[in-house]
Parts: sequence; C-alpha cells; structure tokens
Amino acid sequence: MSKTKKLKIIPLGGLGEVGKNMTAYEYGENILVVDTGIMFPENDMLGIDYIIPDFDYLRDKARIVRGIVITHGHEDHIGAIHHVLRDVPAPVYATPLTRGLIEVKLARNGMAGQADLRTVQAGEMVQIGPFQVEFFHVCHSIPDTVGLGITTPGGLIVHMSDYKFDHTPVDGWPTDYAKLAEFAQRGVELLLADSTNAERPGWTPSEMVIGPALDKVFQNAEGRIIIASFASLISRMQQVADTAVRYKRKLAFVGMSMVDNAKMARKLGYLSIPDDTLVPLDQALNMKSKDIVLMCTGSQGEPSSIIGRLSTGTNRQFDLKSGDTVVLSSHPIPGNEEAVSKTINRLFRRGADVIYDAIAPIHVSGHASQEEQKLLLNLVRPKYFVPAHGELHMLKHHAVLAQQVGIPKENIRVVENGQVLELFDGKLELGDRIPGGYVFVDGRSIGDVDHGVMRERERLSRNGIFLIDLNVDKFTGRLLHDPEIITRGYVSPEEAERLIPIVQKKVVDIVNGGGLDNEKTIINAVRSFLYNETKRRPMVFVTLSKT
Amino acid sequence: MSKTKKLKIIPLGGLGEVGKNMTAYEYGENILVVDTGIMFPENDMLGIDYIIPDFDYLRDKARIVRGIVITHGHEDHIGAIHHVLRDVPAPVYATPLTRGLIEVKLARNGMAGQADLRTVQAGEMVQIGPFQVEFFHVCHSIPDTVGLGITTPGGLIVHMSDYKFDHTPVDGWPTDYAKLAEFAQRGVELLLADSTNAERPGWTPSEMVIGPALDKVFQNAEGRIIIASFASLISRMQQVADTAVRYKRKLAFVGMSMVDNAKMARKLGYLSIPDDTLVPLDQALNMKSKDIVLMCTGSQGEPSSIIGRLSTGTNRQFDLKSGDTVVLSSHPIPGNEEAVSKTINRLFRRGADVIYDAIAPIHVSGHASQEEQKLLLNLVRPKYFVPAHGELHMLKHHAVLAQQVGIPKENIRVVENGQVLELFDGKLELGDRIPGGYVFVDGRSIGDVDHGVMRERERLSRNGIFLIDLNVDKFTGRLLHDPEIITRGYVSPEEAERLIPIVQKKVVDIVNGGGLDNEKTIINAVRSFLYNETKRRPMVFVTLSKT
Repeated sequence: MSKTKKLKIIPLGGLGEVGKNMTAYEYGENILVVDTGIMFPENDMLGIDYIIPDFDYLRDKARIVRGIVITHGHEDHIGAIHHVLRDVPAPVYATPLTRGLIEVKLARNGMAGQADLRTVQAGEMVQIGPFQVEFFHVCHSIPDTVGLGITTPGGLIVHMSDYKFDHTPVDGWPTDYAKLAEFAQRGVELLLADSTNAERPGWTPSEMVIGPALDKVFQNAEGRIIIASFASLISRMQQVADTAVRYKRKLAFVGMSMVDNAKMARKLGYLSIPDDTLVPLDQALNMKSKDIVLMCTGSQGEPSSIIGRLSTGTNRQFDLKSGDTVVLSSHPIPGNEEAVSKTINRLFRRGADVIYDAIAPIHVSGHASQEEQKLLLNLVRPKYFVPAHGELHMLKHHAVLAQQVGIPKENIRVVENGQVLELFDGKLELGDRIPGGYVFVDGRSIGDVDHGVMRERERLSRNGIFLIDLNVDKFTGRLLHDPEIITRGYVSPEEAERLIPIVQKKVVDIVNGGGLDNEKTIINAVRSFLYNETKRRPMVFVTLSKT
Repeated sequence: MSKTKKLKIIPLGGLGEVGKNMTAYEYGENILVVDTGIMFPENDMLGIDYIIPDFDYLRDKARIVRGIVITHGHEDHIGAIHHVLRDVPAPVYATPLTRGLIEVKLARNGMAGQADLRTVQAGEMVQIGPFQVEFFHVCHSIPDTVGLGITTPGGLIVHMSDYKFDHTPVDGWPTDYAKLAEFAQRGVELLLADSTNAERPGWTPSEMVIGPALDKVFQNAEGRIIIASFASLISRMQQVADTAVRYKRKLAFVGMSMVDNAKMARKLGYLSIPDDTLVPLDQALNMKSKDIVLMCTGSQGEPSSIIGRLSTGTNRQFDLKSGDTVVLSSHPIPGNEEAVSKTINRLFRRGADVIYDAIAPIHVSGHASQEEQKLLLNLVRPKYFVPAHGELHMLKHHAVLAQQVGIPKENIRVVENGQVLELFDGKLELGDRIPGGYVFVDGRSIGDVDHGVMRERERLSRNGIFLIDLNVDKFTGRLLHDPEIITRGYVSPEEAERLIPIVQKKVVDIVNGGGLDNEKTIINAVRSFLYNETKRRPMVFVTLSKT
C-alpha cells in the first residue's frame, strides 16, 4: 500500500483554539487549503499584533497546493491570506462578498491585483486537483458564507465552517438543508464542524430578534445613536440602515474599515441603503443629534478603535456628549470581557447611555448552539466526526454531543492543531504530528517573536528593570566615576531617589573593596538588596567597562 | 447649621468596581467603617499582587474611628484588614466564622493577638459611637454573613453587603426576611445593596442544586475526584464532605489555606465532617484512586494554585493522572475567563475529565439576581437607594431596577468610590469628593507602584528593551571600545545577532564622526533604525561614560 493513497486531513489552525482557522487536505501530490485566518492576541501575549497559523508544512509543498478555498470573510478565516499567498501563491476560491473582502485586505497589504482570485457561487461545484468541492450556502453573521462538500479519493467530507441554522436571517437566505440531506444520502465519511458554542444549550436566536431591540433604542434615544460592531458584520449594517430609514435618521459610517467594507458591500449588492439615508461623517456631525446614527468599530473595547477613543476622550473628529446613546452590538470575544466592561464604564462616565448585550438583545451569536449542532449531525449522519473551530474544552464537549446523537465514541476524533488525520480504506486514523501552534506577528516580523521573547517581556513587565553602568580603571580596579543607575517600571520616582544612592554606595564598596570578579557579583548583590527592600525582583543589568 | 450634624456616607471601595469593599459612616467626631476588602489585579495591572482601598481619608481621623464591622469572611471584604488596622487600630466586630477567618489572616501577617476583635452574633445589636448597629443574618456563599441595620442620627440605613435569597441554603439558615420587614416598618432612610448580578435576570439558584450535580460527578468518576474552589467557600466544603460520606470516599484538603480554614470552621462548628472521612493528603495519595476526593484551590486558573500547577505538571506532591476527574466549582471572576479556559484545556490535555460551570451546575452565584434585588427593594422600601458593590455599569443597571419597583429616579444616587454622600434633614445630597481609587500592593510596598510605574511596565512589556553602553575618551571624543549592547523582550537571539553589529557600527560612526552631542542623539538614531528594521519600538537606553 503506497503512502500516497491516504487522504490526509491537516489541522493548521482553529482546533484547540478559537480563531485562525486553517485546514489542509492532502492526497498524493495535491493539497487543498480551506481558510487562512488570524487570531487576536490573548492577554498574556504582550506586544503582539496578531497570530497566524503555523503553515510551515505548506511552504515546502507550495507547488502542490492546488487551491485555497475561503468559506467567509471574517478575519479568523481570511486574515492571514496575504501571509499565505506570499509563500503559497495558489488560486483562491470565494463567493463574491468574501472575494470583495479579500481584495480590500490584499490592497491594504500592497498586494492588489497580485492574487489569482476566482469567484464561486453557493450551489456551484469546482474541481481542484483530485478534490471536487461543492459550495453550499450557510447562515452566519456575515452574508455569502458557505460550507463545503469535498468529494475526495477517501470519500465525501463535509467541511462545515462557521454556521448557524437561522430560519429568519437578515438576507432571507437560510442554510441549505437540502444539500446537507443530499450529502447524507450519498454517504458522508467525515464531518468537521464549528464547536464555538458547544457549551451553549438550546438554539442560537435568529438575527431577527435584533430588529425589535434596535427599534427600542431608536424610540428611546433623544440624542445621537452610535452603534459599534465589527467592520465585517454586513448584516448588522443592513439592520441599522433599515431602522434608520424607519426612524428617519441619516446614517454615517465612521472609520476606514467600516467605510470601505460598506462601500464594497453596497457595490456588490449585499448591502442596500437608500442614497439619501447615507451621509458622510462630517455632514452628520453638523446635523441635529436626533437626526443621525453613526456606525463604527470598537465593540470589543479595543483602545485604538473609535469607541475606545470616545471612551477616553481622545477621538479626533468628535467627542461623546451627554444624551448620546452608545450601542455595543457584539458579544465580548473570550479574553476581552474585562476590556469591554471597562469601556462601558468609561462611556457611562462620559454621560452616554450605553446599551450592551447583557442588558438588551442587540447582538446574537453567529454560531450554532447545541441543538443546532445536534441537528447538523443528524442531517449529515457522518461515519466519522471531528469537532473543529474551538478551544479544546469546546471540542471535547462537541464530542459529547455527537455521542448523544449516536456517533460511536470510537468514530469521534478530538485533535488539536498539528495532529494529522488519515482517511484510508474507510478508516480514520491518527497520522503524524507536525508543528502546529502560534506564529506571532509583531511589527514587521512573523514568527521572530517566540515564547522566549514573550517570557522576557513577561519578566520585564512584572517588576521593571534596574540598570547599573560601571566604569572601572583596568589597572587599579577602582571606579572611575559613580555608578550610573537607570530604573523603569520598578518603583516610583520618590522611592528610586531613596534607593539609588544606597545601591551606588553598595556597588562602590564592592568594587573598590576589590570584590568585583565580574558583573554577576554586582547583579547578585543588587538583586538581593532590592528584594529585601521592596520584596520585588526587577531585572538587573550591569554594563561594565574597563578603561 | 453646623457641618458636624451631617451624616456622611463615604464609599472607599466597591462602588465602581467589583471587589475591595469598604464604606465609612461619619457623624461629627465619630466614624464607623464597614468592611476592608481587597481586589485582585486586572489583566493590565502588570506585576501587582493585589489592590486595597485608598483609605487615606481615615488615616488622619484614625482616633475617631469607633469601630470596624466586617460583614463576612471573603477576601473582598476582609482582605485588607491588616493594612487598615496598622493605621486605624479600632475594635473589629464580626460573627464567629468571620472572626475566625480574620484571625487566620492576621496571624499570617504577623499580627496574631494584636487586634481588638469582638464577636457578635446575627440578631445582636451593638452601639458603636452614635451608631446603633443591628446585625442580621443573610445567605451568601460563606456561612455567618450578616447585613447591617445602622440607626444613625441621619436615620436608619440598611447596609446590605453580599447576599442572596436562598430558601434552601446548605446551613439551613435563610436570610432574615422578618428583620428586613421590621426595618421597613420603622422607616428606612437609605438602602445600600450589592449590585454584582444586577444584569442577571431571574433568581440566583439555591446552593441546593449543587448537590445533585456533585452526586452525578461521584457516580461517574472512576478515578480520583479533585474539586477546586475558593478556600473560604465553607459551604462548598460541606457539600463535598456530605457527598464523600454518601459515596464512601475519604476527603483530603490540599494547600495551606484550605487546610487552615477547614480546621478553623470545623472547630467553630461551621463545618461538619466525620473524623473517619477526613484524611491527610499523604494518606489519601496512598489510597486507591476511587476511594478519595481532594479539595484544593485554583478554580480561577491562578498559575501558582494547586490546580494551576497540576495543569502545567509542576505540582510537588502529586501529578494528575488519566482517569482523574477535576471539578472547577466556581464561576470565573470577570477578567479571569481566559485563564480559566486555558487551565481547563491544559487539564484535558493531561488526560483528566474536567467538569466546570459551563457544562454542569457545580457552582451557583452567591449574589442576588434581579428578582431578588427587586424583592429586597420592596421588602425594605427605602426612601433613598444607593447601588453598591459593582462596576459602574452594574450600579447603573441596579438603579434601573430600583426605578422599576417605584423608587423615584431623584432618590437614587449612582456614585463611585470617593464621592461622599451626606444625609441631613431627610435629604441625601452629594458631598465632597475625596481621593478614592486603586492602591496597588506590590511586594512590600503599598501605593508606591502607581499608574506612572504601571505605564513604564506596559511600555517595557510591549516591545522590550535595548541597552547601549558607550565609553568615550573625554579628550578625543572617540569610543574607547565597541559599544556594549544588551536586549531583552525585543527580538529573537538570532535576529539580535543580526541587528547588534549593525547598530554597533552606526553608533561608532556617529560618535567617531563627531556627531555625539549627548545620549539623545544615539537614542534617536537607534530608535528610528530599529523601527525601520522591525516596525517595533523597544525602549532604548544609553549609558555614556566619558573617561
């Protein structure tokens, strides 16, 4: 039996974490990539801009990557596309809106017109190497999302990216149940599906519930309405626009990403706003407060977003004023709860009324909850099941749900990024482990900042630094001048003023007393003195010149 | 009208944040303090151990503080008692269990026997200066919690600390509804009440629901059961002990705080465990896995806790093994969600089965939800209402609830720490603002680490440091040796090896080219070079000696 006959399923991102989704399917000399997402840094990833999948595995095999399929336009599915295309310049397949968002992203990264982008429609089928990919429509919090039926030499695989079963979505286009049932009739070897809400009982509410909640906001607001959401949440833009029309307010988008995405979505027909409802920001700011609604980013409490800057009074074009109603139309991404909560407090402090998901249904999840996940499993009836897109505990719980609907435990594989699966001869087995983890993007570098650098940042951040510069006469071994000391992030300036002369004297005593063997002697003495004085351990550095 | 006739209510902690609860009541030359809590650092408070209230206001008035009343033994109510008593050595009034926990804390901080501790029982009344304080029982997640009816010269104030209306609490002792109704009959001028769950609809479930959930865990567990909770959650200890007896497992407490608190609670009669059920840890570890249950700390994902160490394989006395069932019997404190989630993933990775509050009712909140908060308002029928104990957005929402039950909007005061309220002649008015904020405890220092130091730590943590040591001949202005460079938290060692020689050359060129005016010249040149190379901005330091 030759190795090339095995179909490999290679999770490069999204399994064991929320975000940066990326999966590769490999058969012989052919690779199909699905999604190229990024993930936002966690609280302990100091100084990191964002995280991309470790796709080193693909670099060596770039020439056999036959295509990259993107399921929808959210950052955790398209965000790393420019990084991937630089090393793996394969054709990219996406639906029109997703393609539009990819084009915006590539243009921002200096790659406009450099990629081979191919538009597909939900319902179409594309042959990509030995993979026959059927695109079918699913509901999610962005229009034009698709799931994939991939007929492979190992059998039919249903790759269900983010989805929900919304019977009344904003765009009126529900998930393609018929296609899922048809797959089941053909016989599905393996299902991979989104686990984000595997711990959430029941059924995720329809996008429709947001309408009445927005209505109430518009009814009650006496001044401006400022609605924060994600720049890619096109359906939320539609809902806000529809409500603005009903309440005769003009709508302005604020911030480059909002403006760009809205423009592109309108052009492609995914966002319908009457021309006389939409106004530029500067015009809106000159209108009466009760005649306008602004839509911007910052619902996650990001300090540099419009809402973040409004909350701290550092926004350029306009400030919050009393009577403003701010709506945070999103749910905090795990890890952002504290930032969101602080932002809400700050907005209140500035006199705004704040509406957020804990007190009004102005947001619904875009991901299936438990009953939907069970419905999917029963619709598709796969032989094997791999929970995807979620932290390990979500994957584990998704596996429990699958057992509940009758998938035998031994046919469920809970794996994390880097654990290759092999489908061969009707059996799904564990294959090799390849590197699979976080690749940190920080400034220009990709992957240069690793866990070692992160640990140093953590140490620096904990108790600050204490630098001592010594200049010693190489003949006499005596100091040529007083030690120069710099400290940051350790103690207050007043306390530093007290400590520094004592440390200087100690160092002078050691050096001039002949006790200086090397920097280490000084470092150890200063460390233990500082710890005794303050019970804190700054990083101590000594620079020693002998002249 | 003399100033001294006004009753001042001084929020020193807990209003505008969750945690570090502390309130002072002042009338003439008399102050009564209620609670002295700490708060745990938020994610952006780098290196901080914990936070205490800013009680500077009391330092100058220490001699007129007549008493300190502690409502219950949780850290956010007693944690700062040793700090406060050092400056304000007043008598401390507490119920027996609370007193026991205070004694444990004082002993750990080298203050055993140094405080004037006075035991009170729920139902008793104590005259403290001009304040007549009635202690009444309330349910919370720790036994022996009390609310306070404080008859002041300004009228009757009901100070409701943390509470819930649990009809079936573990200790069988429900909240004293009769006392609340009696207060209402007497006429309550002002109610202060816990806002923690003001955004949570409905009624907080009774502690009773945990019983069946624990039963299920014990039924299903094939190996050891390890239950994590807070060391002060005495009622949870009782529930675990009762279940252990039913399932014939032996119980061992792990970790000093758990062991100490359990011992004290048993001694005082608040925890009832048969002698032959309780075993020391070393004995438990030698028993069959299915015969034991361990109880320890770490349910918040704290890295240094037992669970934190088990999750990373760094616990001293024992390791996790396959077949262990770990129960996290708590809900993540806001800001800890990410740490808890990571810990759960790590425990799964080590082969344990993990049960946590998202998937099983193994924890209930100790705080009243909206229906209970409305019941309290209707029971007490206060003239004025001040939402307490919560972040600003919770206080705001508690105020909305109060309006719903008929308290006029103008009789509700939403204030944050430091905003003094004055009750005089039947009117509640805003008084002075005093300093009220975070006092950071870091190592030995209290308050020395301020926001300035914190900003420096933040800068250090973002892109690391880059140190350059120069030694220049004071006559020729030329370098005496190559610049010495140290960097941390900036780039990987490989990248540093590439960058350092380039920087050295640049610096040599500047200095020897005569372009060195001062350190600033070098700093600016190196900064812009490093930014161009890496798009990152480490903190650059130059030490310059002229010899």
